[in-house]
Formats: sequence, C-alpha cells, structure tokens
Amino acid sequence: MRIGMLVSGGDCPGLNAAIRGAVLRGVDVLGFEMIGFIDGWRGVIEDNWIPLDRRAVRGISPLGGTILGTSRVSPFSDEAGGAEGIKRRMAELELDGLITIGGNGTQTVAMMLSEAGIPVLGLPKTIDNDLDGTDFTFGFDTAVSIATEAIDRLRTTGESHRRCMVLEVMGRDAGWIALHAGMAGGAQVILLPEFPESVEQVCTWVESVRDRGRSPLVVVAEGFRLEGMDSVSTRAGLDGFGRPRLGGIAEVLAPIIEERTGIESRATVLGHVQRGGVPTAFDRVLATRAGIKAADAVQAGEWGTMVSLRGNEMETVPLSDAVDKLKSVPESRYEEVRLLFG
Amino acid sequence: MRIGMLVSGGDCPGLNAAIRGAVLRGVDVLGFEMIGFIDGWRGVIEDNWIPLDRRAVRGISPLGGTILGTSRVSPFSDEAGGAEGIKRRMAELELDGLITIGGNGTQTVAMMLSEAGIPVLGLPKTIDNDLDGTDFTFGFDTAVSIATEAIDRLRTTGESHRRCMVLEVMGRDAGWIALHAGMAGGAQVILLPEFPESVEQVCTWVESVRDRGRSPLVVVAEGFRLEGMDSVSTRAGLDGFGRPRLGGIAEVLAPIIEERTGIESRATVLGHVQRGGVPTAFDRVLATRAGIKAADAVQAGEWGTMVSLRGNEMETVPLSDAVDKLKSVPESRYEEVRLLFG
Amino acid sequence: MRIGMLVSGGDCPGLNAAIRGAVLRGVDVLGFEMIGFIDGWRGVIEDNWIPLDRRAVRGISPLGGTILGTSRVSPFSDEAGGAEGIKRRMAELELDGLITIGGNGTQTVAMMLSEAGIPVLGLPKTIDNDLDGTDFTFGFDTAVSIATEAIDRLRTTGESHRRCMVLEVMGRDAGWIALHAGMAGGAQVILLPEFPESVEQVCTWVESVRDRGRSPLVVVAEGFRLEGMDSVSTRAGLDGFGRPRLGGIAEVLAPIIEERTGIESRATVLGHVQRGGVPTAFDRVLATRAGIKAADAVQAGEWGTMVSLRGNEMETVPLSDAVDKLKSVPESRYEEVRLLFG
Amino acid sequence: MRIGMLVSGGDCPGLNAAIRGAVLRGVDVLGFEMIGFIDGWRGVIEDNWIPLDRRAVRGISPLGGTILGTSRVSPFSDEAGGAEGIKRRMAELELDGLITIGGNGTQTVAMMLSEAGIPVLGLPKTIDNDLDGTDFTFGFDTAVSIATEAIDRLRTTGESHRRCMVLEVMGRDAGWIALHAGMAGGAQVILLPEFPESVEQVCTWVESVRDRGRSPLVVVAEGFRLEGMDSVSTRAGLDGFGRPRLGGIAEVLAPIIEERTGIESRATVLGHVQRGGVPTAFDRVLATRAGIKAADAVQAGEWGTMVSLRGNEMETVPLSDAVDKLKSVPESRYEEVRLLFG
Repeated sequence: MRIGMLVSGGDCPGLNAAIRGAVLRGVDVLGFEMIGFIDGWRGVIEDNWIPLDRRAVRGISPLGGTILGTSRVSPFSDEAGGAEGIKRRMAELELDGLITIGGNGTQTVAMMLSEAGIPVLGLPKTIDNDLDGTDFTFGFDTAVSIATEAIDRLRTTGESHRRCMVLEVMGRDAGWIALHAGMAGGAQVILLPEFPESVEQVCTWVESVRDRGRSPLVVVAEGFRLEGMDSVSTRAGLDGFGRPRLGGIAEVLAPIIEERTGIESRATVLGHVQRGGVPTAFDRVLATRAGIKAADAVQAGEWGTMVSLRGNEMETVPLSDAVDKLKSVPESRYEEVRLLFG
Repeated sequence: MRIGMLVSGGDCPGLNAAIRGAVLRGVDVLGFEMIGFIDGWRGVIEDNWIPLDRRAVRGISPLGGTILGTSRVSPFSDEAGGAEGIKRRMAELELDGLITIGGNGTQTVAMMLSEAGIPVLGLPKTIDNDLDGTDFTFGFDTAVSIATEAIDRLRTTGESHRRCMVLEVMGRDAGWIALHAGMAGGAQVILLPEFPESVEQVCTWVESVRDRGRSPLVVVAEGFRLEGMDSVSTRAGLDGFGRPRLGGIAEVLAPIIEERTGIESRATVLGHVQRGGVPTAFDRVLATRAGIKAADAVQAGEWGTMVSLRGNEMETVPLSDAVDKLKSVPESRYEEVRLLFG
Repeated sequence: MRIGMLVSGGDCPGLNAAIRGAVLRGVDVLGFEMIGFIDGWRGVIEDNWIPLDRRAVRGISPLGGTILGTSRVSPFSDEAGGAEGIKRRMAELELDGLITIGGNGTQTVAMMLSEAGIPVLGLPKTIDNDLDGTDFTFGFDTAVSIATEAIDRLRTTGESHRRCMVLEVMGRDAGWIALHAGMAGGAQVILLPEFPESVEQVCTWVESVRDRGRSPLVVVAEGFRLEGMDSVSTRAGLDGFGRPRLGGIAEVLAPIIEERTGIESRATVLGHVQRGGVPTAFDRVLATRAGIKAADAVQAGEWGTMVSLRGNEMETVPLSDAVDKLKSVPESRYEEVRLLFG
Repeated sequence: MRIGMLVSGGDCPGLNAAIRGAVLRGVDVLGFEMIGFIDGWRGVIEDNWIPLDRRAVRGISPLGGTILGTSRVSPFSDEAGGAEGIKRRMAELELDGLITIGGNGTQTVAMMLSEAGIPVLGLPKTIDNDLDGTDFTFGFDTAVSIATEAIDRLRTTGESHRRCMVLEVMGRDAGWIALHAGMAGGAQVILLPEFPESVEQVCTWVESVRDRGRSPLVVVAEGFRLEGMDSVSTRAGLDGFGRPRLGGIAEVLAPIIEERTGIESRATVLGHVQRGGVPTAFDRVLATRAGIKAADAVQAGEWGTMVSLRGNEMETVPLSDAVDKLKSVPESRYEEVRLLFG
C-alpha cells in the first residue's frame, strides 16, 4: 500500500506527533510506503513531496509546527483540477489513498473527495476544538495551556495596579479556548461567540467583581459580539456585525469598560503564540494515537471516515458526521463558569 | 443543607480547584453551608475544620497541594470509631452529608460508609489514573506533563554522551504515567507494572535502539518487575518479588543495562516533584468541573456515587462500580507504544 | 529603627522577593520595625499601610505582582505636599527612613527627596533594564524569558506557513528586552528604539532571510521608530514621530513588510503578559539579594544611595549616578546581533 | 584562518548557542573556516569531525545537549599522544587554532596545551558555576531554574502532608546551584559542600521551621558533608568522609531527620534533569555572546586565554587565572541565606 499524507489549513501543536505516529505504525508495522506532500494541496499540485519513514520522523514529536508545511490551497482550485485532477495525480504517484490532516474546512473537502470516489481518511486537528465527531482535537490543550499561563501572569499585574485586564484568545466561531482557559485561570468574566452580551451586562459583571474587592479579569474569544452596540460601534470601530474593524475585540472592550466603570483597563491580544511551539504532553499523546489510528484505519480500508477520540478510545466516524456542524459551547458548559461571574 | 468536605490519601495537583468548584457551586449557587476538615479524617476525629465560602477559596485554583491538608488516617480506626463514630460526629456538626476527595482507598472507604447508611459522595483524585469508572482523574495530566518534560531534558543529555538514560516515574500498580509520558516524550522502551519483562528482553530493545544510532531512553514505572531475576536480584538488591530493596527500580536497571550492553547508563528517579506544584490547565478544568458536579450530585441526593468524567461529560457512577477493580493499562494501549521499541 | 517601604510605578516580577528579602534581613536580623505603604505614595498620603514582619512576607517570593500594590501617584503632587509633606507624614509615623522600590522615575523622585534632606534609599526595579548604575534590574530576566518563549512558539508557526512573524516586546526608550530575547530566540531582525531604520532596510533584511530559505522572525521594541516614513505614516497611522497612532509598531510593520516583500506577515503584540506572573529563579535571587542589601544599607546609614548589582556583588551607588541618564543599548551590543541579520 | 572546536566533559544547556555564536561570527563575519570535532578529544584522535557553517548551526540555539557530542577522553591519553600528538593532528588538518568548550578540567588541559605552544582558546561551561575568572558560566542559570521549579513543586506537597522535603541538587565541590535555587525557592535550610554541619544543627533548624508552623524544605548539594557522623554513618551508609555510600546525600539525610525530629521526611534526588533540555533565555544569551567573543578573541590572537563574563561585558582572562582555583561559595553569600534558617 502506498499512502500520501498532507496538512492543510492553520498549523497546530501536535501535527508532527501525528505524522510520526502514522509513519511508525504505517511503514514499520503495517508495511506501507508513505510520502508527505509539502505545503498541503500545493505539494500535490506542484509534485513536491518527501518520502516518509522512521528516519524522517525521528525526534519530531515535541516540535511545534509541521515538518510538511501547510497552506490554504484547495484541491478544488483551477490548478488542482478538483476530484478528477487529484485522482490523476494519485495515479501518477501510484497512491492507494490519502490521509488529510486538517480542521473543519479540510475535512469538508476530504468528504467531497471521498464522495467523488477518492480513498481519503481524515485526521482532525484544530486548536479551536470546534470539530464535531470527536471529544477533543490535538492542539486545543496546548492553546488552552498557553492562554491559561497568560491569565496567571495578567492576574498578578492586574491586582497590583487594581486594573481590569482583558485577554483576547483565539476562537472565531466557537469559544472553547476561552471557556477552558477562563475556567482554569479563574477569570471572572468569560465572553464567547456563542453568547453575545450587552455592554451593560459586561460592565455590571466587571463592577461586581471590583465591589468584591478584586481586580476583574475578562477572557474574551476573538469572535465574541457585543449586543446592540450601534452607538458604541461608531466610536470604537465595530463593523455592522458588532465585530471590531481593526485590532481585536479586547481592544474595543477595554476602553469601553474603562469609560463606563471608571476602572483602569488594559487589553492583551494573545494572537499567534497560541498555535506554536512545544505541544503539551496531552496533545502529543492524542496526536500520536490519532496518527496510529489513521494508519490502522487505512489498513482496514475505512476510507471516508475521520479518526476520533471517544472517552479513552480512538475510533473512526464517517466524515459526513464530523463536518455536519460546528461543535459549539453548549449552554450547560457556559452555565458552569457563570458561577464565577459578578 | 450542610456539607462537610475532606481530602484523604496522597496529595495531587487540582485538589484546590476541585474544592473551589464545589464551594462556588454549593455555597453561592445552591445555598449549602460547607465546612472543610483539616488533614482528612483526622480533622473529623479531632474536630478540626474551617468554614468554606467564596472568600476561603479565592484564587486557589492554580495552587498545588490542598488548603485542607490530607492524611492517611482511616475512619475505621479505633479513634474514629468506624461508621458509628462518623455518624455521631456528623450529627454533632449537623452535617447532612460528606464529600470525600481521594483515590482508590478513599473511595473504597466511602463505599463502606455509604453502605452503612452515611450520605457520602466520592470525588476521585489520583495522579496514577488507576481508578475505574472515570476516563481520567485530575492530577494525572500534571504528573504526565512533568515526567514528559523530564524526558525532553534527559534526551538531550543522553544523546550528547551516547548514554542510556533510565527514568523512573510514579505508578506502583498501574503504568499510566509511564505509558503517556513515554509516548509523549518518544521513549524507546517503556516498562509497566502490568507487563513484566526479562532482563534479556529489555537489553535487546536497548541494544537495538543503539544499533539504529540513537541513545536509548527507558521510562520505567516504579512498580515494574523484572521477570526471572533470581541471580541478578541477589547482586542488585531485588526482593523476592523482583522489586528493588532500596532505591528505585531505575537504580537497579541502569547498572544491569550498562553491564550487559556496554552502554553507559544513568538512572533518574523523578519522585515527589510529580505530585506537587501548579496543575496543568487540563487538570484545573477537570478538577473544577468535578467539584461543580459533586455539588450538583449532592443537591440531587445522589449519595453513594462518585463523580466521573465520560468523554466531555461529568456524570456520576455508583461507588461500587468505581472501586471494584484497579484500572490497568490494557494490552491494546501497550501495543500502541511497542512500535517505538527496538 | 523604623522604616517605611513602598513600590511606585509599573509592577515587575521579583517585587515580592525584594520586599521579603528586606523584611527578613531588616526585621529578623537587624531588629528594624518595618511598615509597607499600600499603592505607593498614595498609601503615604492616605495613611494606608500594613506592618511588615516575617509572617507578612511568608511564601511570597514566587508570586508575581506586589503584595503592597503600586500606583503612579507622586510625592510632589499637591495632595502629597512634596518633600515637606513627606517629612511631616514620616514624623507622624515616626519613620527613620524610606525604602522606595521603583524605576527611573521613582529613583529620580527619591533623589529629589534625598536632596531635600529625607533619608531615602532606592531599590531599583524595571523590566526594561534601562536604569544606569546597576548591571541588571530584577524583572528584566523574567520579561526576556517570556518574550523568548513567545519567539520559540512563533518560529514554528511562521515556518509551517512560510510567514514573516513580527513580535513586539516592551521597551519604550531602551531596547534591552528585544535585544536579549531576539538573541536568545535567534530572531533574524531585531529593531530597537536606539537604532531607527528605514522601511527599505528592514525589508531588505527580511527578504534576505527568505532568500536563505527561512521564515523571517522580526523582534521589535515598542519604541522603535521607522526612519523617513512620511508617506507610509499617512497610510498606516504613524504620528509625527514615526510612532503608530493606534495599536503597536508591530501592527504597523507587518502590513508594510507584506506589501513590500510579498511575504505573508503577521503581528503579535505581547503586552502585559511580559510583566506579570512567577519570576524566574534569576530574578528571585537578584530581588532577594537587593532587598537584603537595602536593609544592610539602611543599617549602615547609606541614605541617598541606590542598591546596585556589579558582577556578582550587591553594592550601593549614589542616586544621582543612577538616574543621571537612561541606560541605552550601546552600538557594540547591537553589533553582536547584527550578524544574525540578512 | 582555520579553527577547530570541541566540547569536553559533561554536557550543559547553552552549548549549542555557544557553538552557533562562534560560527556565525567566525565564519560569516570574520571569514574563518571552522570544523567541529565529534565527542570531544575522541574526535581529534579518531579524525571524526564535521564542517561548521551557518547551515550547520541553523536553529540550534534553543536545543539542549550539543550537536558535537562530548566525552571525557583526554588529549594526554596514550592514544592522543599529548601536546605533540595534538600538534600533529592540527598540522594534518591544517588548523590554526582550537576552541575548547568545557569546565575546570577541560580548561586546565587547555592551559597545559597552551603552555606547550598550541594556540588554544577556552570557552567556559559548567552548570556548577565553580569556574573562577568569570562571573557566571552558561548552563548554571538553567540548572538553577530547574531546581527552583522542583522546590516550588515540592513545597506544596510538603505542606499538604506536613512533611519535611529534602531535595538534592548538583554541586560536588561548590554549592552554587543549591545556594541560588534555595534562595529563589525560599528553602528554609540550605546545605553546601563548603559548609559542613552536624546532624544536630540540621535537625535544630528543621525543628525550628516546624515550630513556626511550616513544613521544612531542605536543599542539599550532592557534595555536602555531615560533620562528626561516625555512628550514624555506620547505620546510614556513609563512607569515611561522611559521604553516602549509595544513593545521594538526600537519601541519607531524610531518614535521619525523620528519626531525630519525628517529622515525616522524604528525599528527592533531582539528578540528570538539571543538565538537559531547553536552556533559559539568560543562558542562551550568555552562551551566544561567549561564542561570539571566542571568535573575536581568536581573530585578535588572544591564545591561552579564556572567555569571561564581567558585569555586562565579555572579556578574556589568562587560562592560568581561570583554572587556578575552584570558585567556592563565600561565607558572605552563605550568610545572606542563613536568615531564612531556623
């Protein structure tokens, strides 16, 4: 069996551990030949790939990023030629199947290729944890750890200056990083894309924290929207959807909080540090196991599925189940942290 | 409702987050009165406790150890007076129920008290992760992280000197820490209590790593046993069960490996650093949620159960299910890492 | 002897270790009575202070922030009443002297008070390391560590996407954090307030890194100025001094680099996380020793001086020497890292 | 100019940053040809080396260990042939000089070779910081950081169980790691090779900590000796010099403390994790600057000297000054931490 592997979309801690897991299992145990395309689908188009064997993946598990590179190039671009183009390329390279490592977008594409008859197996990764069909995706735990460490640091400077610190973390559509980091760090206000709130409500929470004698710490996901913010949006640079025009939502919120509550406020936008560097042990284990499971699933011919963590077990689920809808933070989970508020 | 809480057995990262979660939910949301006994059951016997409210648990979630202290005193000691004694103490303190935070031993005792008619709820904690009835226990992820960081560090010094580094981690009866840390750190030999091996086998693996041009890194759980080691045990100080008489198993293994393979070998026994200090974000979230769930389960009258993580959900399971048997590393999980060997 | 202590200006990792060092030496060994004013000079004005003894400083050395709080209130405000007002307050509180912990501004004020006859001793702190008269100030090493970890993380994500990552670190007037973190993290371009550069020069360096096959990583101090940027400043929002009007300089640089070089570029502004949280061991040792030395200097009557690190020795220097001028990055140190460029 | 470089003795965090600094400066700026011998003097003997250029040192600064490997082979072994043998090898390889990276032993050998007319330049490294002639050696700060983190972790578990925790850190002849980590971590008893103490004194300190209501934390350097321990040594396995026969001094001390004070005590021997892994930012900067200075000193023909840190400046000192005597912890530094005791 000859298998191609690629990474598509944003990078994510654990990618290298996943690649290594798949190669150690696939090549050494199951006897596959494996190749890795450079920079995702671009490597497929441009015939840019490297052979993958034990030597190629030696010692890479603690490394952030991906040895294969990644890009946002789509197989459905003109250059790639869609399913037919990919089939042709696979035939030329004598590939029996593909393992595509990526998030929601990548797995949707994988499903479309699968429906067009291409043997594809999905290996999920996203720091946002918003992929349905799996308990966790690797990368998420590392992102949460980094955000939590930032909260731990901001808390001491906030309390020394009696300031309100506003930390913006990743999460455009789902607030999992903000939810977990906020809970781990003991943030007193947690604002998620799933639950828009009014300026009045946010400020009431902030003031109530101050009234208990503490320095408020607000964690806000980048995709959070302020409700009913017409007048403020004009001043602070929100677009028609209540999202900030420039900079992050934290940079919009902090001055509003300061103006309305009189509490000196400071914004921090954590940004790309959340997605790089050494993965946590949790992510390395999850990624390694996902890679191993991907090789096993290929061996078993489970094309059209995606590797999934269920409890402690690695399983596979149909790609169509996984990409059906975004995994949002449910009301019940938000309610858990609401007891910290106000 | 008036509820007592105590910690029993070894300490564990996340204990304070669990206590805080239970108090914030129990006192602030559900309206309980709560008290915390100092040093486990000793505090019950000696009437030593503190009131628990929002103020008492402020900011404790990132702190290692436990603000309540812990001990190995049993409620079935003469002083404690067994179930009758505990009932009497609870009546004196007007307690409606107890939340007992602990590992396998503590939850077994909790089950016995429950069977004697005492309203008890178990909140599991153990860095060993050997408690059945829950996917993970808090403390485990922190222990694995610390052990993984040690592997990352030992690898570079091992490779610079072309040495075999042997790292001993916690795990007397179950090898979960060694399994996960070994997988995360890319150890080439992982030795678990569940899978005794012969000296010959271990040395064969070590030599095969060397023959691939690498410096072998061996992770061994403290409870690992060497098979058929009569002659060596005499020399190296093993007892009748193949366990080391003094020092750790790593200190037994390293000289044996060096003698048999000719590869310079060094032992490190990680010890108590695995159970202290700042918990990982994962453990803080799990512990906080476990505490919240414990308060909810008390409210729902689910006495005789233990809080449990299943996938992403916090549930309760009968105490009798949880303490029935030790959760060992199954063959399938060991097989996953075996591909790294040799 | 009765001594008051206060923290003024921005907070900084190591403050608590310094307070603890001064108290353990001053109270326990030298027999002082000590008090700590809350929120800097505001505490002096508002008669808000706490007694400082061994119990008050127990276990605080690893904590970020300051147990005393801080503010930017000046003793030369109307409320404080200047040197005369401070003298009066000290007489009322029966204080024989003051230890003022702060950066350049605070020590300048300390010198003025000293010249007005008030017994003041300066204890330097600033994450910027821009205080002359001492080899290092505590807080700096922690800030550099945090910035270096961010570089380590950004590098892997930059290389996976072949992007240019621009990291902005603290340093309004002196570029020490950028210099050290950039050198530690192996940044290929390091931009400091002391050395303005043109857009052309920066882009030439960036392109040359790309031409060597690497993903450029740029570290820029917040106070860096682009030379001759009139036309760009209009577009990107620079003020008359070439500084960004909103957001950080990184947010100005990244789009310019992308536009001119065609390399996809991303900005990260590290912000307040650089000044909070657990201090490094280096900073805890330096801060503790600085506190001890401050108590010894008080005992020796060395008023009007500032504690200083010289090589491995703690010394004192006249406040006038310390605040005379800002410690800038010299040409020779910048030249050391220039070999990484281009 | 053609220059050889090698690492000798124990490995140390920062070695790769030093090699990189020397190469970037030497090859790219000064136009040297450089080669690196594999495994120290063994590589010289066995003609095993690699060319060193920008490509060879790319991205290695954050990596622990050394890309060149190291060994304890001496140039004065029979195989190496002493100074004459080394001269011959250098002539064969057309080398104009050597940069030897190592600790006290290595620099003593470098001095001997220099006195025999070989152009040698010393680049100091030792985690023990016991090399005279320089304020700090790289590797030390990383070792102190790791030991401090261990103290932070042990403290919480010690306090939860009301135990005395005894941590053994590296330092056979000089107690710098124990001194700095103990001060940074707030250990209440710090025991150094330079200051032998009696069992009675140690136990008095431990009891006095307990009597203040705290859980004692003892940091002991591996080379610490108990005074007048004849009777105990028999029981606990001390050799004639009061050093432990097997295991570390911590494993001797803990049971003695427990027996004499009645306080439950636990030993942790930190071991090799202190010398591996990612260097701190401080060590990376110091090592990089030391490498750069080494290349500059070679260019300036300063053979027979060693690179040295003085305050903030990199200088050179005659090798004879550097290896003259061990840098011990002076009474004054020990006295600083004694205020924490008892």
